[in-house]
Formats: sequence, structure tokens, C-alpha cells
Amino acid sequence: MSDLLRLRPAATADMIAVFDDAATIAYACAFETALAQGQAAHGVIAPDLAEAIAAGVDPARIDAAALAEEAALAGTLAIPLVARLRAMVGGAAGQALHRGATSQDVADTVLMLQVRAAHRLLAGDVRRVVDALGRHARVHADRAAIGRTLLQEAMPVAFGLRLAQAARGIGDALAMLDAAVGRHANLQLGGAAGTRAGLDDKGTAIAAQIADTLGLGRASPWHARRTGVAAIGAALGILIGALGKVARDVALLAQNGVGEAREPLVAGRGGSSAMAHKRNPTGCQVALSAATRAPGLVASLLAGLPQEQERGLGGWQAEGPVVADLFLLASGSAAALALVAEGLEIDEAAIARNLAVAEVGDDIGESMGVIAELLGEQED
Amino acid sequence: MSDLLRLRPAATADMIAVFDDAATIAYACAFETALAQGQAAHGVIAPDLAEAIAAGVDPARIDAAALAEEAALAGTLAIPLVARLRAMVGGAAGQALHRGATSQDVADTVLMLQVRAAHRLLAGDVRRVVDALGRHARVHADRAAIGRTLLQEAMPVAFGLRLAQAARGIGDALAMLDAAVGRHANLQLGGAAGTRAGLDDKGTAIAAQIADTLGLGRASPWHARRTGVAAIGAALGILIGALGKVARDVALLAQNGVGEAREPLVAGRGGSSAMAHKRNPTGCQVALSAATRAPGLVASLLAGLPQEQERGLGGWQAEGPVVADLFLLASGSAAALALVAEGLEIDEAAIARNLAVAEVGDDIGESMGVIAELLGEQED
Amino acid sequence: MSDLLRLRPAATADMIAVFDDAATIAYACAFETALAQGQAAHGVIAPDLAEAIAAGVDPARIDAAALAEEAALAGTLAIPLVARLRAMVGGAAGQALHRGATSQDVADTVLMLQVRAAHRLLAGDVRRVVDALGRHARVHADRAAIGRTLLQEAMPVAFGLRLAQAARGIGDALAMLDAAVGRHANLQLGGAAGTRAGLDDKGTAIAAQIADTLGLGRASPWHARRTGVAAIGAALGILIGALGKVARDVALLAQNGVGEAREPLVAGRGGSSAMAHKRNPTGCQVALSAATRAPGLVASLLAGLPQEQERGLGGWQAEGPVVADLFLLASGSAAALALVAEGLEIDEAAIARNLAVAEVGDDIGESMGVIAELLGEQED
Amino acid sequence: MSDLLRLRPAATADMIAVFDDAATIAYACAFETALAQGQAAHGVIAPDLAEAIAAGVDPARIDAAALAEEAALAGTLAIPLVARLRAMVGGAAGQALHRGATSQDVADTVLMLQVRAAHRLLAGDVRRVVDALGRHARVHADRAAIGRTLLQEAMPVAFGLRLAQAARGIGDALAMLDAAVGRHANLQLGGAAGTRAGLDDKGTAIAAQIADTLGLGRASPWHARRTGVAAIGAALGILIGALGKVARDVALLAQNGVGEAREPLVAGRGGSSAMAHKRNPTGCQVALSAATRAPGLVASLLAGLPQEQERGLGGWQAEGPVVADLFLLASGSAAALALVAEGLEIDEAAIARNLAVAEVGDDIGESMGVIAELLGEQED
Repeated sequence: MSDLLRLRPAATADMIAVFDDAATIAYACAFETALAQGQAAHGVIAPDLAEAIAAGVDPARIDAAALAEEAALAGTLAIPLVARLRAMVGGAAGQALHRGATSQDVADTVLMLQVRAAHRLLAGDVRRVVDALGRHARVHADRAAIGRTLLQEAMPVAFGLRLAQAARGIGDALAMLDAAVGRHANLQLGGAAGTRAGLDDKGTAIAAQIADTLGLGRASPWHARRTGVAAIGAALGILIGALGKVARDVALLAQNGVGEAREPLVAGRGGSSAMAHKRNPTGCQVALSAATRAPGLVASLLAGLPQEQERGLGGWQAEGPVVADLFLLASGSAAALALVAEGLEIDEAAIARNLAVAEVGDDIGESMGVIAELLGEQED
Repeated sequence: MSDLLRLRPAATADMIAVFDDAATIAYACAFETALAQGQAAHGVIAPDLAEAIAAGVDPARIDAAALAEEAALAGTLAIPLVARLRAMVGGAAGQALHRGATSQDVADTVLMLQVRAAHRLLAGDVRRVVDALGRHARVHADRAAIGRTLLQEAMPVAFGLRLAQAARGIGDALAMLDAAVGRHANLQLGGAAGTRAGLDDKGTAIAAQIADTLGLGRASPWHARRTGVAAIGAALGILIGALGKVARDVALLAQNGVGEAREPLVAGRGGSSAMAHKRNPTGCQVALSAATRAPGLVASLLAGLPQEQERGLGGWQAEGPVVADLFLLASGSAAALALVAEGLEIDEAAIARNLAVAEVGDDIGESMGVIAELLGEQED
Repeated sequence: MSDLLRLRPAATADMIAVFDDAATIAYACAFETALAQGQAAHGVIAPDLAEAIAAGVDPARIDAAALAEEAALAGTLAIPLVARLRAMVGGAAGQALHRGATSQDVADTVLMLQVRAAHRLLAGDVRRVVDALGRHARVHADRAAIGRTLLQEAMPVAFGLRLAQAARGIGDALAMLDAAVGRHANLQLGGAAGTRAGLDDKGTAIAAQIADTLGLGRASPWHARRTGVAAIGAALGILIGALGKVARDVALLAQNGVGEAREPLVAGRGGSSAMAHKRNPTGCQVALSAATRAPGLVASLLAGLPQEQERGLGGWQAEGPVVADLFLLASGSAAALALVAEGLEIDEAAIARNLAVAEVGDDIGESMGVIAELLGEQED
Repeated sequence: MSDLLRLRPAATADMIAVFDDAATIAYACAFETALAQGQAAHGVIAPDLAEAIAAGVDPARIDAAALAEEAALAGTLAIPLVARLRAMVGGAAGQALHRGATSQDVADTVLMLQVRAAHRLLAGDVRRVVDALGRHARVHADRAAIGRTLLQEAMPVAFGLRLAQAARGIGDALAMLDAAVGRHANLQLGGAAGTRAGLDDKGTAIAAQIADTLGLGRASPWHARRTGVAAIGAALGILIGALGKVARDVALLAQNGVGEAREPLVAGRGGSSAMAHKRNPTGCQVALSAATRAPGLVASLLAGLPQEQERGLGGWQAEGPVVADLFLLASGSAAALALVAEGLEIDEAAIARNLAVAEVGDDIGESMGVIAELLGEQED
């Protein structure tokens, strides 16, 4: 019942692993263990119970398929998982496991652990795209090319200016994502109704310790306001769109009647099952396909914001798969475009030829200065 | 690298199987085999080549994970799959395999085979919801209850009227889906650029035979116009929304201060990891979560419509996973609500009590006639 | 406080008029008058009251700006409008006005009157696009041109095949819209809670008469199930996307390095404020801008489906402006593309030159047959 | 041809004015005047030309309806507007007007002037909502109430905790919007192809002066990367969703079987055209309707990100009306909820009664501390 043929063409294998069953179970176990340790450190449960929990919890012993069946029935992952973990740990320690927490605490914290891991993975590939585009932009900062507006030839630009604009857009979007993850990828610990009841008035300190242990931000309970999840998702959507811009441009430049740039030749990529002579812009395709899907996914996250009372019915439960999809798509887009940008083949002769045909001179205005501005600082 | 913990809570196991790797490969193999047989029947390839293809193609021998890796690199499933099948079949028959077809022919046809299978599965559960709601509506066709508008008590209605409205909405939506699948779940066979070149001018007859073999509708090549995919997706989105309406109503009726109806008790379902006394409307949660996600998915499909020329870059490639997601969500919603509707616990005393408190009499107007109209015929 | 600079570039003046204040008030008045006449015909109110209502109601005497202020305060148009109309009619007739109806009956019926009028306007322009594309497709049914897939040159096609595909997509989408409007643009008459209380058990007959008078379909109360509105909106979204496909293709064909087709020269259109030499694909721009906006609007309609009980809070109230926006965008797109399609300039020399450069021969396969199929019958 | 009945119920009159024809023309004139002054200050045009432009440009003399017709034909506002302004100014000064700029410079700058004005208006109302909710939260920081999760009674919470969560969500969202507007509402000045050609290499200084004059941020040309517009739109979507959360909660609390809080009585608001006894949550309706529409609008903005080359075809042209719609909806939501929050009627007896019935004690855990945290600092 694997799903690779649907996921893999649009996402990197590493990113798929961040959201797969094994990772989900491991993160949930990490939460339960850190919860017990945090409570022990502040005297809410006995230290030996926390030690027994840490020693006894073993993600590798969980049968993911059986757990998924029970979670589907229960309507929540936490109930069947906690039951398994309690049985695994046994005794008083087993009973102490999950104390003070509720299902959504597990779900939200797992999601944010995945967000942190996914963000780290993604940022690397995005940075490769930005850097490579910036390098090309600097190399071609004074190369006159025909600019195109509304899909028609317009006036000259530096060839590097278009790449610098794209690089800056992607860089700005990555900065938005960095900021959103930095601020909103936080521990959730609220308990049954979000009051941190049952933590002996040590909730803030315990939560801080758990957050530090897990590498998450400290925060007040946020189960009932989902603005942070929405902010992360929106930043991902903007990033995927900004990546789509360079994909669109490269694909247009690679058209046979234009020929100013094209994707590098990658063995096994870009062929056609019917036409051996073709060289398809496959990296651009991956990025544009992601950009087609992302806006609707962001809309799904925003749609869940007006959730009911202390824990909504349906809204926040929709977030996890959607955030995962956005990271999966972003990963595929960024990885594909990293290869495209790093190996971009730029045809200087075609650039010169197309400019000459347009008969609009070669005044590139302040292109060089604008490129320097665009690459020199990030706006966001 | 399985993904069950993300998919299963929102979808039925049967529906997941329709879109999993094994099914995708099996459908692709069925297309290639039927293609060869169709060509043989019309003299385009020799009959023994088609027989060798039918005998040699074995989906079970395909390594899905390796295929997914290569498909991700190639930017299309067909290229590495066809290479494997050609090697598997060998000789002249291997070379004849996939003749006259292109990657998108495989992808679009596989998607429509999945659509047909998914629709059959889904329709059964949806019909259960409609039938169960209809039964309750008839039983309570003259039971006066307080009607609620804008979340405030309004005037009396028959309790069954609300259920009949919901049933009719779902029934109408299913009829839309039936029609869209019936019309648009068709074979795609166009070849490299959609002209059916290479089929010896027998393209229409060959396509008709393949469609019949595979149980798909006959159609002209539709690779370059995606209105049919969009129509199927839109109908799914409307269906998921219509299912969401009854979920919203049941959840509101099940509130502690209202208590007129609630989900049946299902062992292992609806509990809370923090509060043993709770009985959560888990079936409604699944349906409302699906309804939160569906509109954005439909938007993604519509966004791909203005695709480029003979085969777009990014737009149609985004459709497959989105159509799958819509069927997955619809399946989860319908299956959950089938249980809810069939076992719906209706509290007649609470209904009477709430009506009495509202002090608006008990005139249910023409509720009975309206219920009969709503249940008697489908509008769409 | 007019809004023309925002609306007009994207919509036709005629379509703007369908949804402007004057039309909205006129349709609401028509509903109230037909309601009274329907009740009089079936003995629910005295005939002279209906006559006095018909004589006294005068849309021209309503101050739209003041009404809008009060409607914004009241949360519904009907309350301040009915108050004005009752004062205008006066006496017992004034008191009889709006009897048996509720605010949503007015709002939903007005919307469907606008849908019927808007659909008539729109269908004319869409048909012009389909017909003009079909004519070009037939003329160029055997003209070999280079086909392009994934934005790369592929194999030959008939130049007319691309236009025929686009025409068929648009024709299919129009057929979907025709069907949706025909089925779902119906009278809404349900009264306070949707039971048709207060109509002396004559509700069905009265509703039928009102529907006939207003030129709407007859239907059971549908206030609580919004699948019909969603179906109309989805069909509009698909139509706008299908129109966007031909806009995308024309814009790509009109690129300087391609030059196979371009928009006709229209006085005052397509210029640049900075570059006198440019000829911009302005009609395509209007259509592609509409296609960028439509998917999100359809998502908004679907998001409102799971509405609460007998009358939702927020969901259906969001529909009116969104349906209007979809018709406005569709009108602008269709009108712009009607001009483009009718006057499309096709450069046969460029087509031949581009094909020759591609060096893939001139076998257009079964293009002519496929074109005939595509233009001969509508799939939906 | 006014549109008030569609706009006004969902938006404030002040916000409608920010985006109406008069404001659009006035902002465009301000741009052209500041452009001339900036060029004169840096010696690109003679000072007396700039003075003549400043003296001669008069927005009040522009016929908006006629301009809209021509703009619709031209595909851009700037061409017919500049023609009018040049005629109005006359002579050499007229010819100098718009020099160095292009249509998109006008359109983008006007949009950002509207964004700045709209943001100022909106922030006031949003702050009122946050402050009022905060006040109630503090007053009821230790009032035990029944918490509700998944629409079922759960465990006790402080009544103020729910309000504090909502306030914090809205406050966070406003902070996101403040940041996005502060960073991205910038002058656009790039000229024909975005190179700032024709400004005698003084482009950066001239742009800085224009930005300062107009009260916009300074920025490199951003016409070809739309991440800033998307960020502003996404923040608006998140804000509208966060406002929707409190609307949902108040509407649920105001249900007849719950009765813990309700909207204040406002003369002329919340009545029913069919039921005199009703008191509808009209402010919540406005906010929830906005929250239904916003996600799709944000999706539309994201869909335009992968725009083509130096100036896209269709993508950015779709942004203006969508950004306007988002501000319009946000204004209506915030203004409606400001009244709701400031006058919120909280029924302490009902709160106590509902808690007692739930029989879960009255332990509100660390509610008071959490409320203090939530109100004390903004996370974003």
C-alpha cells in the first residue's frame, strides 16, 4: 500500500522520509518521553517513572499499519499510540505516560517537529537555487538581451537582471519561511482543554524544558489559534510560487524559437517516450506542477482558521497532511531547480542574435546597479 | 517509507489501494497490453506480437520503489516503465510495446481507470448515507422540532426536513459525479503530439477497442483539454461539501446543550486521550476535515486548465495526485458518515423539550410534502 | 463611490449591469410582486392586495445608497427593502407584501434571476469564440505545423487541431454551464424556516407559479443545500479555464520567435505606455487574468457548502458576490476572446517555416479526422 | 452602474472609498506628479516642467466612466490616463509627464498607495477588537466555565481564556500584516523593461525621492517578483481567518441552548424579515462570510506568482482587484467584530449553570497565567 509513484515525482526522498510513518511515530515517542522528563524535573512525577518511560518507549516496536487502522477508527493517533506505549512501558510508569497532555498536544508537537526538520532540509536546496541564480546574474550583469513583457519583445535588459529578480524573489520567500518557522514552530502543551491543568502549576516551566529538549520554540498553548500554522503554510506557498517564476522563465527561454537558456543535460531526465530527439524542461515541469498545486493547499489551511472553541472539529485536523504536502512539493521544486540553476546552459550567441533582431538598441539602463541591489540585501 | 498515518485517518483502506503503487503499475500494464491487442486487431502490429506482450507483461515483477526513483528523474512514469516492460517482453514484441502511444496517454488512461474504480467504491458508501438519511427523514417527517437559522432558534420544522435536505444535497452531488465520470472517464490515445500518427489511419477504431477492453469511455484525444478532469474534480468537491453539511448538522445537534441527535457508539471510536467521559463526533470530524481540504484541491485542478499547446508544462501533471486526494477524502467522509447516518441516535424527548422551550408553537407547515419532494426525485 | 476602474477592465459593461444596484433592486421587486400575485391566484391573499402591490412597487423610487447602508447594518437586504416597499404600497396591501417569505428567499431568488440573465449574455460571446475557432480549425485542418509539447517542438500536427481542441474544451464547458443553469437556477421559496408555513398548504402550486412568472425553474426549497450554486460556479470556473487555454496558446503563438498567429489589430488596444512599437496580446491578458482568479472563487463557493442547519451563518451569504465575480470575469474573458478568435491573424508562412526548421517531416497523422470528431459533437 | 449593494454589506464605507474610482485616479495623478518632481530634482527634466505638471494635473477633471471604458479597451489604465493628463497639462510639460515610467509602474504604485491607506484604516478597527477581547479576558480570567472541544463539553477553563486565545490570534495576524505592509508596500519604478533606463543613471535617487514623497517604502524594481503582494495578501487572509475564529465562538456561545455570550443589541441590526423575536448574530455573520471568501482570494494571488519574464501576462493584472477584495472583507469583518467585542454581553449565570451541569468540577488549571502570557506579548 505504498504511495511512492504518487509522491516521489513531486518530492525528494529525504522530505518524504520526514513525514512518513516511521518519523511520525518517532516524533510522537520523543514528545511523550520529553513530557515525562519535563514533569520529573519539576517534581510532577517521580524521576524513576520518567527514566522507565525513556527506557521503555521504543518506536521501532510499533506496527505502523495496525496503528494507522486504529487511529482511523479512534479519530486520533494519540489514543492507540498511548495505549501501546503504556503497555510497552508497563506499571506505574506506563500510567504516568501522557499525563497532563491530550491528543492534540501530540499531534501539534509532532507536526512542528516535522516542520523544523523539513525546513532544514528545504532551506539547503533553496539556498542552492538562490546562489546559483545569483552567480549567473553577476556573470551576465552587463550582457544586453531583449527584455520581454506580456510575452512580447520590449526593450533591452541585462540578461542577468531577470535571474537576479527571480533570485531575489526566492530569497525573500525563504526569509519569510525562516521567520515563520522560527516564530511559530513551537511546542504545544495545553492538556485536555488548554489550561495546563494537572501540571501542578509548573506548566510554563515544564513546557519550556520540553521545548528545549525537542528543539522547538517555547510558547503558550496555541491549540486554539492556528495563525502560526497558516503563516508557515503561506510562506511555503509563496516560496513555491517564487520558484515557479524561474521555472516559467527558463522554460520560455528554452523554447526552440528563443534558445537563450536551457536546463542542463541530466542522464535519464527530460526524454520523451515517443520522441527520442526531445529535451524536455523536466526540472521546470516539477516546479510548475508544484506551483499549480500550492495555492489551493494554502487556501485549505486558511479555511481552517475559524475553528470552534477550545478545539475545533475538522479544521485543525486538516492541517497536518496539507503542511506535509506543501513541504513535499517545495522540496521537489527546490531540488529540481537547484540542478537547473546550477547547470543552466546560457547561449550567449542566441541572446545576441535575438537582441539584434528586435532592433531596439542595447541600452540596458541601470541594470547593473539594480542587479547589485537585488543581490545585495534581502528585503524581508 | 509508507504514508499510512497520514492517509488512513482520512480515507478508506480500499480507496487507498486504488491509488497505490501496485494498482498504478497494474493499470499501466493493462493499457500497454490493450494497446497492443487493439493494434493487432486492426493489422497495425502482428497478432503474435500482441500475444507475446500480453503473455510477457507482469506487473508483479516491477519494483515500485526503483521505478518511482527513475520516474522522478525522468519526469514521467512511462519512460522507465516502458523500458522495463520492453525488457521483460523482449524481442520484436518488446519493441512493438507502447508503439503509437506517448507518456501522457499512459498517465491519463491510468488516471481514468483509477477514477472508474474509485467512483464505483465511493458510490456505494455515498448511497448508504443518502438511504439512511432518507429513512430517518421519513420516520420523522411529522415530528415537530425547532428550526434553527443563523445558529438561532427560529420557527418549527419537521425534524426529518433537515435530514431530507441533506440527503437530497448529497444525492444531487452524487448524480453530478456519476454524470461527470460517465462522460469524462475516457481512454486517452493521441500519440506523440495528439494526432494519432503511427496507427495506420485506424486510430479511431483502435482507440474504441482499447476503451471497450479497459471499460473506459470512447473519446477523441483529450490530452490538450482538461475540462473533463476538472468536471470530475469539481463534482467530487461538491460531494464532499454536501457530505460536510450533514456532518456539521449532526455535530451541532449533538452538542450538550442541544442533544437532539448524535453519532452511534462505535467501539474504539470517539474517545479522548485526556477525558474518559467524552463521546466525540469522530465521523463528523472526518467529514468536516475533508470538507476543509476539498475546495483548495478543486482550485488546483482548475488552475491547470489553461495549459500550453499540445501538452502543457506543469498543469496536467498536477492533476493525478489531486484527483487521488479528492477521492481519498471523499471515501473517508462517505464511509464515516455511512456509519453515522445508519446508526444515528435521535432523541425524541430532547427534540420535544427544545421545541417547547422555544415557545413558537408546532406548525411545521408543508414539511411533509417538502420531504416527499426532496426524497422523491433527484434534481440533477 | 463607483467601482468601474476595478470592474470594467475585467468584465463587459452589459454584465456589470446585470449585477449592479438597479438590477438587484428591480429583481427583488419582481420577486415580491410575483409572490403576491402567486398568493392571490391561490386564495392566500385577496386579489386586490396583489394588484395594489403590483401597482405600488416601483424600483426606481428606491435610493440604492441609503438602502445599502441599512442593509449593511441589518445584515440582510430584505429587511430595509421590504420596509420601503411596504411604506410605498401602504395599507393592507403593504402589510401583505413579503408574506410567507423570508430574507433568504429574496436573496436566493434575486441571485438566480441574475444567473439566468448573466448566462444568456455570456453564452452569446462564448458561442462566438467556439464558432470562430471552429472555422479556423476547418480552414487549417490539413495545414502541417510543428506541434509543441512541454514547450518544446515535438512532432507535426495540423494547425487546426490545436484550435479544434480549444474550441471543444470551451464548448464542453459551455454545455456544463448550460446544464447547471438549466437545472439549478430555480426559485427559492421556503419561508422562515424552509417549511412553506403560512401559505395555506398551497406552497408548491404558488411556488410553481412564481417560478414561471419569473422565468426560473421550479424547485423544492433549496436554501439549506447549496449544491446547485456550487455547480453553477464550478461550471463557470471550468469555462474560464477553458477560455484561458486558447488565450495561452495564442499568446505563445504570437511570441516574436514564433509568430504563427496573433490577435487582430484593434484601435486603442494592445499599445504600451512606454513602447510605441509593441503590440500586446491584450485580449489574451484579460482571459488569462480571469483564469488566474477563477479557481479561488470556485473554492470560496465550495467552502460554504457545509452550512449550518436551516440557514447557515456566513456560508451562503458569501455566495452572491462570488457568483457575480465569476460571471463578470467570464464575460470579460469571452468578449475579449471573441474578438481575438474572430480576427485571429494566422501566418501561414511562419507556420511552414517553423515546421521546416524542426526537421520532423509533415505527417499530421489523423489530424483531419480528429478535428472533425472534435467539432462534430459535444461530449458533455 | 454602482455596486454598493454587493460591496457594502461586506465592507466599510471608508474602505470602499480607498479603492473607488476617485481614489484610484487621485493616486495615479499623485504618482505622475511625484515622478516629474523627482526627475526635476535630479536634473532629468527641467524644474518648470515639473511645476507645470504639478499645477496642471487635476484628478477632479477626469471622467472615470469614460476612462474605464478606454482602459478596458487598452488593457491598461495608464495609456488613456496619461493621454488625458498630457492634454490637460499641454506643451512640453505634457510631453515630459510619465517619462521614464511604464504602465505597470503606475498600476503597482497606485496599488501600494491603496494598501498603505487601507492598512491604516483597518488596523484601527482590528486593534479595537483585540483590546476589547483582552479587557473581557482579564475581567473573566478566573471565572470557571466549561471548555468545549470537538463541539463537546470537555474540562473547565477560565471563560477569559477563550477570548484571550482569540485576541492573541488576531493580534499575531495584525502584526504579520503590519510587517508585510511595512516591508512590501513600496514604490515601483522600473520603466519599460524594469531597467530604469531613461533616468540618466539617477534612477535609485529619483525612486527614493518619489517613495518618500508618496509615503511608500523605497525598493528596487519589483514588477517581476510578486512575493511582496502575495505576503500582504496572505497576511490579510490569516487576519480574516483569525477574526473568523472569534465570530465562530461568539455565535456558538450565543446559541439558545448555551447562552453564555451574545452580540450587543444594535438598533437596526440582527432582525429577521420573517421572525420578529429573533436576534441574529449579524456581526459574526459578516466576519464568517469574509472568512469563507478569503482563502480562495489568497489562492488567486499565489497563483499569479510564476509570472513570465519582465512583465507577466495575466498574473499580476489579477492582483489589484483581489487585494482590494481582501481589504474590503477585512474591513467589514473588523468593524463588525469591533462592535461585537466592545459590547459583548456575557451571561455569568449561564456560564455557571452550564459548568455545573457538566459535572467536571471547576479546576481551571493555569488559565490565569496563560491568559497573562497570551495578552502580554505578541508572538509575531
